[in-house]
Amino acid sequence: MRLPAAGQRGRSACFWDREHRRSVSTSTWRIMRPDDANIAGNVHGGTVLKMIEEAGAIISTRHCNSGQGEPCVAALARVERTDFLSPMCIGEVANVSAEITYTSKHSVEVQVNVMSENILTGAKKVTNKATLWYVPLSLKNVNKVVEVPPIQYVHKEQEDEGRKRYEEQKLDRLETKQRNGDVILPVINPDRQTKEPHTVGYSQSSLIHLVGPSDCTLLGFVHGGVTMKLMDEVAGIVAARHCKTNIVTASVDAINFHEKIKKGSVITISGRMTFTSNKSMEIEVFVDADPFVDEPQERYRAVSAFFTYVSLSKEGKPLPVPQLLTESEEEKRRFEEGKGRYLQTKAKRQAQLQQAAQH
Amino acid sequence: MRLPAAGQRGRSACFWDREHRRSVSTSTWRIMRPDDANIAGNVHGGTVLKMIEEAGAIISTRHCNSGQGEPCVAALARVERTDFLSPMCIGEVANVSAEITYTSKHSVEVQVNVMSENILTGAKKVTNKATLWYVPLSLKNVNKVVEVPPIQYVHKEQEDEGRKRYEEQKLDRLETKQRNGDVILPVINPDRQTKEPHTVGYSQSSLIHLVGPSDCTLLGFVHGGVTMKLMDEVAGIVAARHCKTNIVTASVDAINFHEKIKKGSVITISGRMTFTSNKSMEIEVFVDADPFVDEPQERYRAVSAFFTYVSLSKEGKPLPVPQLLTESEEEKRRFEEGKGRYLQTKAKRQAQLQQAAQH
Amino acid sequence: MRLPAAGQRGRSACFWDREHRRSVSTSTWRIMRPDDANIAGNVHGGTVLKMIEEAGAIISTRHCNSGQGEPCVAALARVERTDFLSPMCIGEVANVSAEITYTSKHSVEVQVNVMSENILTGAKKVTNKATLWYVPLSLKNVNKVVEVPPIQYVHKEQEDEGRKRYEEQKLDRLETKQRNGDVILPVINPDRQTKEPHTVGYSQSSLIHLVGPSDCTLLGFVHGGVTMKLMDEVAGIVAARHCKTNIVTASVDAINFHEKIKKGSVITISGRMTFTSNKSMEIEVFVDADPFVDEPQERYRAVSAFFTYVSLSKEGKPLPVPQLLTESEEEKRRFEEGKGRYLQTKAKRQAQLQQAAQH
Repeated sequence: MRLPAAGQRGRSACFWDREHRRSVSTSTWRIMRPDDANIAGNVHGGTVLKMIEEAGAIISTRHCNSGQGEPCVAALARVERTDFLSPMCIGEVANVSAEITYTSKHSVEVQVNVMSENILTGAKKVTNKATLWYVPLSLKNVNKVVEVPPIQYVHKEQEDEGRKRYEEQKLDRLETKQRNGDVILPVINPDRQTKEPHTVGYSQSSLIHLVGPSDCTLLGFVHGGVTMKLMDEVAGIVAARHCKTNIVTASVDAINFHEKIKKGSVITISGRMTFTSNKSMEIEVFVDADPFVDEPQERYRAVSAFFTYVSLSKEGKPLPVPQLLTESEEEKRRFEEGKGRYLQTKAKRQAQLQQAAQH
Repeated sequence: MRLPAAGQRGRSACFWDREHRRSVSTSTWRIMRPDDANIAGNVHGGTVLKMIEEAGAIISTRHCNSGQGEPCVAALARVERTDFLSPMCIGEVANVSAEITYTSKHSVEVQVNVMSENILTGAKKVTNKATLWYVPLSLKNVNKVVEVPPIQYVHKEQEDEGRKRYEEQKLDRLETKQRNGDVILPVINPDRQTKEPHTVGYSQSSLIHLVGPSDCTLLGFVHGGVTMKLMDEVAGIVAARHCKTNIVTASVDAINFHEKIKKGSVITISGRMTFTSNKSMEIEVFVDADPFVDEPQERYRAVSAFFTYVSLSKEGKPLPVPQLLTESEEEKRRFEEGKGRYLQTKAKRQAQLQQAAQH
Repeated sequence: MRLPAAGQRGRSACFWDREHRRSVSTSTWRIMRPDDANIAGNVHGGTVLKMIEEAGAIISTRHCNSGQGEPCVAALARVERTDFLSPMCIGEVANVSAEITYTSKHSVEVQVNVMSENILTGAKKVTNKATLWYVPLSLKNVNKVVEVPPIQYVHKEQEDEGRKRYEEQKLDRLETKQRNGDVILPVINPDRQTKEPHTVGYSQSSLIHLVGPSDCTLLGFVHGGVTMKLMDEVAGIVAARHCKTNIVTASVDAINFHEKIKKGSVITISGRMTFTSNKSMEIEVFVDADPFVDEPQERYRAVSAFFTYVSLSKEGKPLPVPQLLTESEEEKRRFEEGKGRYLQTKAKRQAQLQQAAQH
């Protein structure tokens, strides 16, 4: 089975022999329905993120159980920065294909590609490319990470490149783990009516969600994809409140899942705008979990991430965004940090384009 | 945290000190999607009722577990009469805020306010104000009601007013418990084609639902909000069959939840029209539960309530409603009773308006 | 692309050349969640039927738009008799693969195979094999059936066998179209409490459903899979009420979709038991549609079908079923007709087994 979008990340799609293909790649299709989209008909970024994570969870759980080790379930540990390359619409078919691209002793790297297909015209576009890291947890003992069966590489450099990506993400995960502790719980929902438009407080929003059985894996922990969908929902509301137009997800920064969230928890997802460029908005989203029943544990920060949104005209063209009005010192500091991330991303993209032009 | 809609019920929103705020108030936002609404774009009353109940369940479960007592889950015991003040539409954001306004030894009163916000124009309207009563049931022994930690009041009169509301609802719950026994099981869906339009039999409808895991709390009992959503669905179909136009929920009478419904039960929700005024329809809805698997128990009446619907033109203006044709003595008696409720509500509302005008 | 379960129906899996494969076959995966299953953990037959139909709709819509003709959407016209070969459980991954096996001028035959995979053990089982017929309707004019681009066959006999199946189903569709008109609208839910257990009236059940946007295709008509899921839900409740044990779908007789159902309609799905053998129950299910808003049209019979259920012990073994008590002449007649269908199916299956043993 040849995956339509494979190989596009600059790697050979054929570096496994036939026997390994079934275990390391998968593909799935789903029609996009009205509930998957906003009123302008654009599919929510969160819906796409949830599909991506489900494909990743299936393929990595399957792989981690293919050896002689004990039964386990793959839990999402990290999603690398993800760009939304083109919007998807109601009625289109989303094709999600996933393949395992690297394994360390205790983790699996999965590359997921999403294409949207208009089944009436046959037109296809690449919508997303995402890289996810999973860690296999024992079915019998949730706190035990089991060993991952190694995959085979056709070329040695595939393994070397994978190891490099592995080391990079490991470093970043450690960093954010420390940073997470510092973040102050945002004061969400102050009296919006007294707030001036375009201030941080004006668009701040939050959502509570009671974690039900269908949100969870076999181990009773929330699927990473469910969390990401809710995060995108809050970020979208913040963006829409700020610019009052049709908005779509442009990208999500790397997200680290440090803490598991258990069935029966109440999660609070809060979002605040941190930065605006001429045509984009950056929204910081926090997920806090209250394991309140049966648990001595306190409320804890489970995940946090930066979402970037753009505003679209009726013709689908990017519109200028009203500048964010910062008031407190904190808000000004966060704005500057956001500007730093924005410039860094911009510089990286230009470097990539130049590199591509030279080859 | 200042809740946007608090204080509107004539109470100060600031009567707790900072320490207590986290535990006694909460707020959440959700975008209304196509599946939340009818084809005219009006959000189903049942969707709103379900959101209200979820917010109430979260805040009261959290509060009841904040003391030293045993772990428990708050179960909905009663919803006071709820008016739908203005319709909500697809694409709008619903803001549901909840606060605990009174606690007795074994119950919690929660006030929930719903506002709809058009995020494109920034326009906001109050959609609903609801008062719910919860009872905390022990996680270990579902038949044991645990004690509720008391809340603190800034003014003594807040406690006194709460106690008065508590006594009133207690009385009403006792009454309906007795009344419930009398109600005769309706003959649902006789051959509609032989029935004349606008008779009771013509619009009578019923729905069966198999209670799945996502309908239930941690204790394995149906969330009150799930039941109310299904009741509104049946009432809406009865109303639409009667007047064949776009209809919306105008109000729901107080509902008492005397009997829990267990996961795996089949529930039958039946509705019949009882009364029509010039511009409104009253529909009586029954919920009967069959605990049929693994249980010796018989079918029992779990809940019943009166819903009031109005018919809207394409411009959103109330339309005249065809008069209900009553045939049997029973139907005529129920019509008169419905008229009594209608006139009583009308008188109450006029008294309130006069009182408001005097102040 | 080699479909895992293809060819098991006795046809070659490799009869297309490479160019045509993408357009005529597809495959999808989904994790089964608690909401897809009953409390014993068995996935509802209706969930499986819905997945089957979605795969069929995608592949046939894509194929019908692959030629030069006008844009169209494939609408389900018929599902052949479908057996549920083995139950699927929560946590398993359902793999649905579909291929186009025949095209006439105006219809497409799709073969769908469902396998369940335990991703922890790697064990796979064939769960279902289904054959569906689709008809492409013009996007601009819903009443116009457009022409289907022909597929290419490697062997002439594949085309001949397909034509034979096409003629057979055409005949059967004509027959049921006439039969449907005769069927008397069932009297649903008479006072169950006065009914003796195991009578037809005791287990009779019905369900109403308001058709929302997410139930519909781009043309605004209900997906066949949504209808089948609701039909299975009613049939399951009838079966559970009759034998008060854990029940699962064993098979569904051929279903013909003669009439489209429009968004905004209210559909009534009614089920009554018609026959019991020692270890199986046959339930007849009707779908009636009320296009009640903005439409002069009367209620009409949209679909009807026979579902067969079996009762399972905790160990998953078939249990004896209490005999159906027939009262009226009508009920006795339907019981005899059901017996006829039961014996016919049994004879066919034995003939197939003998044939298989000889080869």
